[in-house]
Amino acid sequence: MSKVVAFGEIMLRLSTERHLRFSQSTAFDASYGGGEFNVCVSLANYGVNAEFVTRLPENEIGISALKEMRKMNVESKNIIYGGERLGIYFLETGAGTRGSNVVYDRAHSSMATIEKGNIDWEKVLEGANWFHWSGITPAISETAAEACLEAIKVAHKLGITISCDLNYRSKLWQYGKTPSDVMPEMLKYSTVILGDIDTAYFMLGIPKVNPNYQDEKSLPVLYSKLFDLLPNLKTVATTLRYSVSASHQRIGGVLFDGKMLYHAGIKEVTPVVDRVGSGDAFMGGLIYGLLEYQNNKQKALDFAVAACCLKHTIAGDYNLVTLKEVENMIDGNSAGLVSR
Amino acid sequence: MSKVVAFGEIMLRLSTERHLRFSQSTAFDASYGGGEFNVCVSLANYGVNAEFVTRLPENEIGISALKEMRKMNVESKNIIYGGERLGIYFLETGAGTRGSNVVYDRAHSSMATIEKGNIDWEKVLEGANWFHWSGITPAISETAAEACLEAIKVAHKLGITISCDLNYRSKLWQYGKTPSDVMPEMLKYSTVILGDIDTAYFMLGIPKVNPNYQDEKSLPVLYSKLFDLLPNLKTVATTLRYSVSASHQRIGGVLFDGKMLYHAGIKEVTPVVDRVGSGDAFMGGLIYGLLEYQNNKQKALDFAVAACCLKHTIAGDYNLVTLKEVENMIDGNSAGLVSR
Amino acid sequence: MSKVVAFGEIMLRLSTERHLRFSQSTAFDASYGGGEFNVCVSLANYGVNAEFVTRLPENEIGISALKEMRKMNVESKNIIYGGERLGIYFLETGAGTRGSNVVYDRAHSSMATIEKGNIDWEKVLEGANWFHWSGITPAISETAAEACLEAIKVAHKLGITISCDLNYRSKLWQYGKTPSDVMPEMLKYSTVILGDIDTAYFMLGIPKVNPNYQDEKSLPVLYSKLFDLLPNLKTVATTLRYSVSASHQRIGGVLFDGKMLYHAGIKEVTPVVDRVGSGDAFMGGLIYGLLEYQNNKQKALDFAVAACCLKHTIAGDYNLVTLKEVENMIDGNSAGLVSR
Amino acid sequence: MSKVVAFGEIMLRLSTERHLRFSQSTAFDASYGGGEFNVCVSLANYGVNAEFVTRLPENEIGISALKEMRKMNVESKNIIYGGERLGIYFLETGAGTRGSNVVYDRAHSSMATIEKGNIDWEKVLEGANWFHWSGITPAISETAAEACLEAIKVAHKLGITISCDLNYRSKLWQYGKTPSDVMPEMLKYSTVILGDIDTAYFMLGIPKVNPNYQDEKSLPVLYSKLFDLLPNLKTVATTLRYSVSASHQRIGGVLFDGKMLYHAGIKEVTPVVDRVGSGDAFMGGLIYGLLEYQNNKQKALDFAVAACCLKHTIAGDYNLVTLKEVENMIDGNSAGLVSR
Amino acid sequence: MSKVVAFGEIMLRLSTERHLRFSQSTAFDASYGGGEFNVCVSLANYGVNAEFVTRLPENEIGISALKEMRKMNVESKNIIYGGERLGIYFLETGAGTRGSNVVYDRAHSSMATIEKGNIDWEKVLEGANWFHWSGITPAISETAAEACLEAIKVAHKLGITISCDLNYRSKLWQYGKTPSDVMPEMLKYSTVILGDIDTAYFMLGIPKVNPNYQDEKSLPVLYSKLFDLLPNLKTVATTLRYSVSASHQRIGGVLFDGKMLYHAGIKEVTPVVDRVGSGDAFMGGLIYGLLEYQNNKQKALDFAVAACCLKHTIAGDYNLVTLKEVENMIDGNSAGLVSR
Amino acid sequence: MSKVVAFGEIMLRLSTERHLRFSQSTAFDASYGGGEFNVCVSLANYGVNAEFVTRLPENEIGISALKEMRKMNVESKNIIYGGERLGIYFLETGAGTRGSNVVYDRAHSSMATIEKGNIDWEKVLEGANWFHWSGITPAISETAAEACLEAIKVAHKLGITISCDLNYRSKLWQYGKTPSDVMPEMLKYSTVILGDIDTAYFMLGIPKVNPNYQDEKSLPVLYSKLFDLLPNLKTVATTLRYSVSASHQRIGGVLFDGKMLYHAGIKEVTPVVDRVGSGDAFMGGLIYGLLEYQNNKQKALDFAVAACCLKHTIAGDYNLVTLKEVENMIDGNSAGLVSR
Repeated sequence: MSKVVAFGEIMLRLSTERHLRFSQSTAFDASYGGGEFNVCVSLANYGVNAEFVTRLPENEIGISALKEMRKMNVESKNIIYGGERLGIYFLETGAGTRGSNVVYDRAHSSMATIEKGNIDWEKVLEGANWFHWSGITPAISETAAEACLEAIKVAHKLGITISCDLNYRSKLWQYGKTPSDVMPEMLKYSTVILGDIDTAYFMLGIPKVNPNYQDEKSLPVLYSKLFDLLPNLKTVATTLRYSVSASHQRIGGVLFDGKMLYHAGIKEVTPVVDRVGSGDAFMGGLIYGLLEYQNNKQKALDFAVAACCLKHTIAGDYNLVTLKEVENMIDGNSAGLVSR
Repeated sequence: MSKVVAFGEIMLRLSTERHLRFSQSTAFDASYGGGEFNVCVSLANYGVNAEFVTRLPENEIGISALKEMRKMNVESKNIIYGGERLGIYFLETGAGTRGSNVVYDRAHSSMATIEKGNIDWEKVLEGANWFHWSGITPAISETAAEACLEAIKVAHKLGITISCDLNYRSKLWQYGKTPSDVMPEMLKYSTVILGDIDTAYFMLGIPKVNPNYQDEKSLPVLYSKLFDLLPNLKTVATTLRYSVSASHQRIGGVLFDGKMLYHAGIKEVTPVVDRVGSGDAFMGGLIYGLLEYQNNKQKALDFAVAACCLKHTIAGDYNLVTLKEVENMIDGNSAGLVSR
Repeated sequence: MSKVVAFGEIMLRLSTERHLRFSQSTAFDASYGGGEFNVCVSLANYGVNAEFVTRLPENEIGISALKEMRKMNVESKNIIYGGERLGIYFLETGAGTRGSNVVYDRAHSSMATIEKGNIDWEKVLEGANWFHWSGITPAISETAAEACLEAIKVAHKLGITISCDLNYRSKLWQYGKTPSDVMPEMLKYSTVILGDIDTAYFMLGIPKVNPNYQDEKSLPVLYSKLFDLLPNLKTVATTLRYSVSASHQRIGGVLFDGKMLYHAGIKEVTPVVDRVGSGDAFMGGLIYGLLEYQNNKQKALDFAVAACCLKHTIAGDYNLVTLKEVENMIDGNSAGLVSR
Repeated sequence: MSKVVAFGEIMLRLSTERHLRFSQSTAFDASYGGGEFNVCVSLANYGVNAEFVTRLPENEIGISALKEMRKMNVESKNIIYGGERLGIYFLETGAGTRGSNVVYDRAHSSMATIEKGNIDWEKVLEGANWFHWSGITPAISETAAEACLEAIKVAHKLGITISCDLNYRSKLWQYGKTPSDVMPEMLKYSTVILGDIDTAYFMLGIPKVNPNYQDEKSLPVLYSKLFDLLPNLKTVATTLRYSVSASHQRIGGVLFDGKMLYHAGIKEVTPVVDRVGSGDAFMGGLIYGLLEYQNNKQKALDFAVAACCLKHTIAGDYNLVTLKEVENMIDGNSAGLVSR
Repeated sequence: MSKVVAFGEIMLRLSTERHLRFSQSTAFDASYGGGEFNVCVSLANYGVNAEFVTRLPENEIGISALKEMRKMNVESKNIIYGGERLGIYFLETGAGTRGSNVVYDRAHSSMATIEKGNIDWEKVLEGANWFHWSGITPAISETAAEACLEAIKVAHKLGITISCDLNYRSKLWQYGKTPSDVMPEMLKYSTVILGDIDTAYFMLGIPKVNPNYQDEKSLPVLYSKLFDLLPNLKTVATTLRYSVSASHQRIGGVLFDGKMLYHAGIKEVTPVVDRVGSGDAFMGGLIYGLLEYQNNKQKALDFAVAACCLKHTIAGDYNLVTLKEVENMIDGNSAGLVSR
Repeated sequence: MSKVVAFGEIMLRLSTERHLRFSQSTAFDASYGGGEFNVCVSLANYGVNAEFVTRLPENEIGISALKEMRKMNVESKNIIYGGERLGIYFLETGAGTRGSNVVYDRAHSSMATIEKGNIDWEKVLEGANWFHWSGITPAISETAAEACLEAIKVAHKLGITISCDLNYRSKLWQYGKTPSDVMPEMLKYSTVILGDIDTAYFMLGIPKVNPNYQDEKSLPVLYSKLFDLLPNLKTVATTLRYSVSASHQRIGGVLFDGKMLYHAGIKEVTPVVDRVGSGDAFMGGLIYGLLEYQNNKQKALDFAVAACCLKHTIAGDYNLVTLKEVENMIDGNSAGLVSR
């Protein structure tokens, strides 16, 4: 069986209930999540051996995050402890024409103050065949970027498949370096990249492009340039998202493997219960698909898109659906019938 | 005034809140319902004298179900007591592409262990002019099937109109008999049947058909075959349901009286607050319509469809709407204006 | 900076949760609101100095309303105290084809028993440049109507801009006078009126018309008649509302300034979180727009329509959105993206 | 079987949750209750045929109160409809040194505007053997006092036992008459009175006394004076309440039957879940005790005290306990063991 | 490190909120627990390697129970799947003089229908040094009793310490056998027994005794008789519970090791947040104490009593406290100071 | 009228509901508070003009804190904006023998990064006659200590009464300085100090003492030493707290004015709804008492103690009680009667 290890931050997520605004709320729903952890939960739900590595504070909030990992069947044995606080993000869930609003409070977290050398990656990655990281870790602090690069290099040395979700967030990257200072070195070991082409170009320091994801001709050209720059790259995938309103999304996807361009059909997603984490659901589905359907890239992409769509109906950061539910949706059973 | 007696099971319904999945839930909404009871509530809301007959356990959960009946103005004086437990069903309410999920936990209930002879039907049905049962009761146990047939025969002897909602559930029928072993004898006394034609064919042991409910020619032929087999049959009706997603349904209906075929226009139902029980709401509306508009079958059908649509906006098993609200909807007032 | 003073009633609003019906509810959400107060909150949110004048009972419910005003940054220093009770309204929030239902319980409130002379309007209105009232105050009692007319006259004498939201409610006006007995005298001082033309005609005692709000020719003629009758009138605006269902509205608007007719494009509003107070959100946006964009009536109207649309996504009576959020929506950013 | 009819007001009760203060509350728990209705619920729980007569508004809030009556198995067939509103009271539940706080909002209710002649008491009381009223009804309005006296006179004419809970509330009695204007005429038909001696003296216009409920000598003298004045009086009972704090009460009782003085032992009641309605629980227990244990006044009193104690553990206005639970407590089983 | 394996049933626990009665509840708190599982959670919290073995249904409710085990760090790898349903119990939490009420709905559960041979105990118990079972398993069905005896025998063969919590429940044992038919054979392998002496006598078929737990002389005599009968017995312990009310308990304990009698001082426990599971907390503390303080039986007993006391402050079935919190309490820090 | 200005930090407080532990919580109650702000709320409730000065982040969480201030009628016009985050603290409310647990997450807050010179204290303190600060501000960071000393010096220069609540928290003071490095200079301007003598000695760098607060002889000697060291000191007061359990406190107080020693009687406080902030309630009561009862130090102390006791019954950080409620308690009305 495959074993996937992901490295990143898990946060306490405090969200308002029933579309209330922050200032109306006398209570926040409390759950735990974060991009790379969410990918692990998806994989564990599909039956893959998934492990999450992070740094947690030794207090009750950190312990609560740990219990959530255990509940979701994500291996936590290599987590390290220390630092001051668990990162937090506040979420106000929008509706219709009012978008959701995120207030980050993740600076100075235990993960942001992690340092290169804190984790024995040779030991952690023993037996793993996939390593996943995202563009958020290098964005939170210089030491986190260094710690992540260290992990990537070990993974590469061990011949492990490496995936990266670009996840560009302009509000982060506050420590004096830009993505193009840091990311090219990190990305060059990646086998699988999830993200918009223009984000990839931007992170690699290439002049901005305006990709047309419907254009079957220009798209392979743009993607090919990435393959030229990143020697280990095998697969690039992009979620296509058309936002009709906060409550109505249209979701599709594109995958390019250096030769072929694959498209997944657009699906209507309405209403949206919770869209935060739907990109992570795509990523989790993509890793599963690439592991499971190695000779069928179309199916891998379809799996990622179906998983992403279903995530919009799940409250919380991660995608609490089963393998069978995703497969049913790929097979066209998306009419929301009552199972009884 | 009409008096309708229904016989069946009432269950504790435990549903997750706000589209949460079962494993996310730290609380379940608790209410009480069941197909035949739901029909009684609809009728009581429309001003009809409605009585529900069942078997309840003598514990606090059974008593709570009884209090719900009283609250809804459904007569409960002929309920009998005994057995081990109230049946339970768990409901996870879906959204969009994720359907709702029902986990039944109704085996070994007080109603499942009822036996022929437990109820004095001659006395219970005195003064009644309508008796309602559904295909669920014969599906839960052999003794329940026998107890139900006993009631049907007494009702027939007393010249009471008998209606049946076919309600086929493949997960039930676990006790060694098939619908075609049991249902033909039970259905032959029925005056009114609610259900898909193919379900009726299947239950009567006739080879499967694929009805086209838009086909004004073939449909009467298929329905007529039922009339041939069931000597007391006067009316067959079918809910037409097109499921766009768990949150969006299109609802219509068809009624055949042996001569004429009636269609009700399709209505958009979105969002769906709770669709469980919407078939029972149709059945309750149909009985009311047939009692009240005896010379206007179209209006009876329109009433049933409008009631069914409104049910989708009501949380819980039964249709908590007034006669006036259904009538307003038939009259075209379905734009959801604020009444103030 | 502008200073707007509004006069009216603030009520305790008791609403059912999650689309439950009144008889299903074991708890009511409690908040505070009312047409004229809601306008003040909108203005305060946009940075305008807003003051609300009313009469509150000296009990804990009245104090709670006062605290809500303070929280929302609405000046309350000229509120007077006395009378028996705070007005209440019960709200059952509909969904889809089932409309929301309001039960008023506002008779005999402290505001309904206010009397002319209770408030020193010369002092209250000192320094103000806008006075707002609505057709609800004259509808609740004769003494409230007199107290309101007194305020209007002082505002007029002081040369203050006067706006009125016609807000006709047939369930009020129970004290023996009709709108046409009372409103013509009150409206003749108004500079800005919000309301349907036919309502205005009705209140002024003019025979009923059937305006076609798409008709660019007849509409100015109908509006002009209002300008003929009301010597101080400068602006009339109307919210255009097409109700697809309780959960789906289409919102636009029309403004006429005596010369030009302005139309705002229709916007889709779905789902509706809470539509009560969306007219007040339009009014608040209109006042802000007229104050801020004095030479750009189109922008004033667009601002009012955008504010009104956003209100449908906010729980509670008033429009808890920022100036920037309304401006973003006018600029076309209404796809409900996540801000992070 | 005995049949008890009670006449009075049922209100919507809006209470804050978890000891929150009014101004902290964003939701109120909603339930229904009132002194005389609460007595009916107690009796129905003990198996007595209990009927409640009142006047309800024809709106959804009135209907919700009606449904609560049905749920609690209290007969409601003689309720009349009309008037503007259901009375409301707001309750802030205290703790420790902070007492609970009630804000009444019951003026102008449907019951307050009831009039003599509205109810056909000859018909209502047919078959009843007990009629219960309280000092609250004559306190809310002159017409309610008249309507109540009318009922009392018919009950007396029919030879029915009449009980009254004095229930003096100084905040009521606002319509220009004092208790001593109204109560003597009403009380002279009463067979059973519940209340403090000094309250009885005050209501009968006798100079105030300071009873010492531990004084076995003076107490019979004081009580005897009531028997002298009230020709039909057979039993007077008083709840003894020592309030250590809002969360800790000591409850006992005294009963005098014209000859003998009975004392019930003091019981510790802590914590207090909800003490509102505990006097009504005493009254309900007393009526049951007097009906059931006619030759054992001590047991009747003990039953009333035990019922009153148990009520303090029940949320809401009325005493949701079974006959067996009260009997167990009389038998000394009050250690709160887990039943499993 | 020690490894403890427990065998028993885990149930869905549905409890009313805020002391509401069953019939008042529109929602139930949902959690998972059961005597033997609760012991595992205690041990896992104290850092012991704890594994729970049971049989779960393959549905979402069973999966939710599994996730709870994972969250609590209890090993679940040897759980088997099958059967119809997860056992349920309903809990109404009392207060003061009103005791808590449990309604069991555990018949026909997956665990009740387990059979001897379903589990490979040789493999499961490999590496374990403690096996725990309780008197509930043989009480639910004959096959469960047989399956439990099988496990006990394997554990005995492997030389593993065996503990049993007698846990007599008169409502169970419905399958035709009495405790004295079944328990003597099962108990004779036990090394550690938790339970009242009289319960032990009863289960062993010895005539009933009335132990006086304060009597330092008679108690060793009574306990010694158990040691005579049960050849492997090394330790018997009893929780001493004095129930002042449902909200106030006094908790102590006694331990006898065949030679010495140990007493733990009585502690005041008030208020009680949740007492269900406090016996399991004692058992978990006792196992930990006997493992950790092998030469200090007094400390082992003190640990069990302190753990039991703390459990009364924890909502839910199991004892969610840390080793340090129990140790602090033993050291006398039970004044409930704020840690900040 | 007096005007009191306080300087300090306001935090988001996230507390678990119903005594749940952190890891059990799927929601946190959200409110806002902090020692110095809580004092302002007390004063505003008693009718004193109170202003709070702090530094808030410019995000929605900071805005929500600002709205809470407005709601509580605390002046906020001199608040400054900047920095990264609002400080947070997590609170798990204990019960009985389990104490409450606080997890601080306040490092790097906007207030911790405030600097000397950020606030124009000459302008802010114009017209004020009291300035309040606490030992928490110098404990959070060196720059906050400097900013606080700056304020103190200006207040002293302007001849304003200065009070300090010592509030020693060992978990703070992490930036390299000890209280005795910083506090002596700050305290020497204080007129009123609240805190234990030993804390004061410790902060002033005097060898530790063990005060006996019942000793009428030694206590004045110890206090006098403070008066010797602090030239402006006029009043020292101490809350006496005996913690029976987390749910039961005994509260008294001592005040020394340089000459006389005043004691307030011990009051029983049980149950405890929320004890966090009860020291701030004492401080708020003390300031009010000293302002209002200048010639009656006993009454000032009694007021502070009564206010502190009542706070234990109020959920949240600050003391939401009225002047009249505190006065009633001083007058002995603490039996928790229902006001109706």
